[in-house]
Amino acid sequence: MRAGEALRRLGERRPLVHHITNYVSVGLVANATLCTGALPVMAHAREEVAEMSGAAGALVLNIGTLDERQVESMLAAGRAANERGIPVILDPVGAGATALRTRTAGRLLSELEVSAVCGNAGEIATLAGLAAEVRGVESIGGDAREAALKAASSLGLTVAATGAVDYVCGGGRALAVENGHPLLGRVVGSGCASTAVVGCFAAAAGSADPETVAHALAYFGCAGEEAARGAGGPGTFEARLLDALAALSSDPSRLSGRLRVGDAGAG
Amino acid sequence: MRAGEALRRLGERRPLVHHITNYVSVGLVANATLCTGALPVMAHAREEVAEMSGAAGALVLNIGTLDERQVESMLAAGRAANERGIPVILDPVGAGATALRTRTAGRLLSELEVSAVCGNAGEIATLAGLAAEVRGVESIGGDAREAALKAASSLGLTVAATGAVDYVCGGGRALAVENGHPLLGRVVGSGCASTAVVGCFAAAAGSADPETVAHALAYFGCAGEEAARGAGGPGTFEARLLDALAALSSDPSRLSGRLRVGDAGAG
Amino acid sequence: MRAGEALRRLGERRPLVHHITNYVSVGLVANATLCTGALPVMAHAREEVAEMSGAAGALVLNIGTLDERQVESMLAAGRAANERGIPVILDPVGAGATALRTRTAGRLLSELEVSAVCGNAGEIATLAGLAAEVRGVESIGGDAREAALKAASSLGLTVAATGAVDYVCGGGRALAVENGHPLLGRVVGSGCASTAVVGCFAAAAGSADPETVAHALAYFGCAGEEAARGAGGPGTFEARLLDALAALSSDPSRLSGRLRVGDAGAG
Repeated sequence: MRAGEALRRLGERRPLVHHITNYVSVGLVANATLCTGALPVMAHAREEVAEMSGAAGALVLNIGTLDERQVESMLAAGRAANERGIPVILDPVGAGATALRTRTAGRLLSELEVSAVCGNAGEIATLAGLAAEVRGVESIGGDAREAALKAASSLGLTVAATGAVDYVCGGGRALAVENGHPLLGRVVGSGCASTAVVGCFAAAAGSADPETVAHALAYFGCAGEEAARGAGGPGTFEARLLDALAALSSDPSRLSGRLRVGDAGAG
Repeated sequence: MRAGEALRRLGERRPLVHHITNYVSVGLVANATLCTGALPVMAHAREEVAEMSGAAGALVLNIGTLDERQVESMLAAGRAANERGIPVILDPVGAGATALRTRTAGRLLSELEVSAVCGNAGEIATLAGLAAEVRGVESIGGDAREAALKAASSLGLTVAATGAVDYVCGGGRALAVENGHPLLGRVVGSGCASTAVVGCFAAAAGSADPETVAHALAYFGCAGEEAARGAGGPGTFEARLLDALAALSSDPSRLSGRLRVGDAGAG
Repeated sequence: MRAGEALRRLGERRPLVHHITNYVSVGLVANATLCTGALPVMAHAREEVAEMSGAAGALVLNIGTLDERQVESMLAAGRAANERGIPVILDPVGAGATALRTRTAGRLLSELEVSAVCGNAGEIATLAGLAAEVRGVESIGGDAREAALKAASSLGLTVAATGAVDYVCGGGRALAVENGHPLLGRVVGSGCASTAVVGCFAAAAGSADPETVAHALAYFGCAGEEAARGAGGPGTFEARLLDALAALSSDPSRLSGRLRVGDAGAG
């Protein structure tokens, strides 16, 4: 689904997007969800996650500050989402940096039917079994396109590797998204927020096919471009990013001609 | 207690307001407390909550991201607050959305002497036993005035149902607060922040009677009106909301003639 | 190490700084770390903290919202940091306010080799065994210089007591840092953020000697001074503070002549 249609649906239906996420960027993630037109809810208690996912249009799992109990809740929520057939999006934050993160990302992918994985090049390369350097939660170098292609093929789902150019692969397709701005890399949690927007678009579309994911990232990147104009640095940029997400979602026609989503060669 | 007097007392006494709250809006809640003139503290460890509440002027319980251990800490802190006779404010975030949240709100209300409950129309309707739709943590429709009246009567305490107009009921009174701005509904945690401000005013007044609660919400709404002028969207609005809370609390005379608190018919 | 050299090293090496911290100011702490030029990572799971600290250039422990499990993780991470010889920085948030916080700060100091402690005057006085009033996480009065001198002497490490003037003592030296702005005291977590910047400088220098700590605080204070120009209050100031940290770290020559670090008498 393309961005304009996804944003119009979100504005009409206001689906719930259930996040089980890290406590570093949780506020930005929730606000990005609301500014995109969906209703965010964060709920992690074992006793309620299945019920909450049961009311949601998509589930977003982010392992940025994972611990054992949180992973159990992710599995319970994911099973409920799978039973209802709603999209499950995984952001494997820090996979490759510690054994716990790599193992947990693998466990979520094997025990749940994940619709799409969104991460930086190093995290995606780790999941694809390629050599990668992940320092904390940052990717150091690496070929994002190759990582996304390989991971999409081996995992059999949509994979986005985000960076200066985002690559979205799956089902034999490979798309490149060229929207964005360097200031996005200077804000903690901007990657988590872009994955949250993917969750919103997946809730609107009812799936996380490559086009839907690429258009979510393109819309997010456009907001970054708009926010950068007049920003004084990373702090004021973050506030303006939310302004831009809200402005573009409430008038999707403003995206016209600005989305730079293109073919990225054979998937 | 009216807003001017509450803000003057807060500036002089700087009471501690103890929050046990969710991790989504915790930063906004803490900063709203500080900008209103009180000292915020977040502490949730079972070993220290009673001691922390023992030093506070009010306790604010917010179940936005509750889990079992946090609820135990809320009960321990609440008992300490009750023993010392300081106001306890409850924000029943998401009551009506899951059984855990509805049950927990009920348990806190039955095991503790809560002074005031502040929530959206759907959450308050749920506590009043009325039909309600709560999607995640958002209220979908519903009659806020009716919900507040019924809940105040059945629970026997001050109840605020917030929305485009806030209704504050209790002790046979019903007040309507018409301050506010639509952008408040576009910021995650603005409801939590308004409840935090109610906690500050209750700490100043030593109680959470309807007038005190209504004036807290009116002051918060005025700050929203002021913040909206010149805001570019929800992100810049949030920063400006804190600026406005701080500006109004340090010079309460600026509220003169701007508070729109009125009678809302028979309680 | 002086500020210019520390910032140049951070820009070249991008060391990881591992934080185990509170959930109130965690977003500000992470963004301040990134804006200073280091890579922040928050990880608290017992299973991964040692591995994460093993990849880091410094470890920052902040007890602002401590609980039992988090303290166990701090000890495990601290031991790993000690084995590798990387600096460990402690922010004893709320020491003096509850027995749990005072006891935990003492336990971390006795079981780990801490390089530097950074806190407000009341927290530092508590660690020095002096009378102190700590209301929640705020220091009420107290002599910061005396507290820092006494704590540095009794603990045998670098101690910073922050306030209108910051005092940094250790190894027979006592330095005063006069950079800063009153708006820093109006933002929740600005003290946590300044400790995070100390962690970044310690990662650059490989130690937390008084000069390195004082220059970190002076750089942070300069950013506060710059952010205050044009800020409309605490909310817009916080965003501008991150802008200023990023601007000064990417061009350290702009600090020239602005750092006000001086001798503060016999240590």
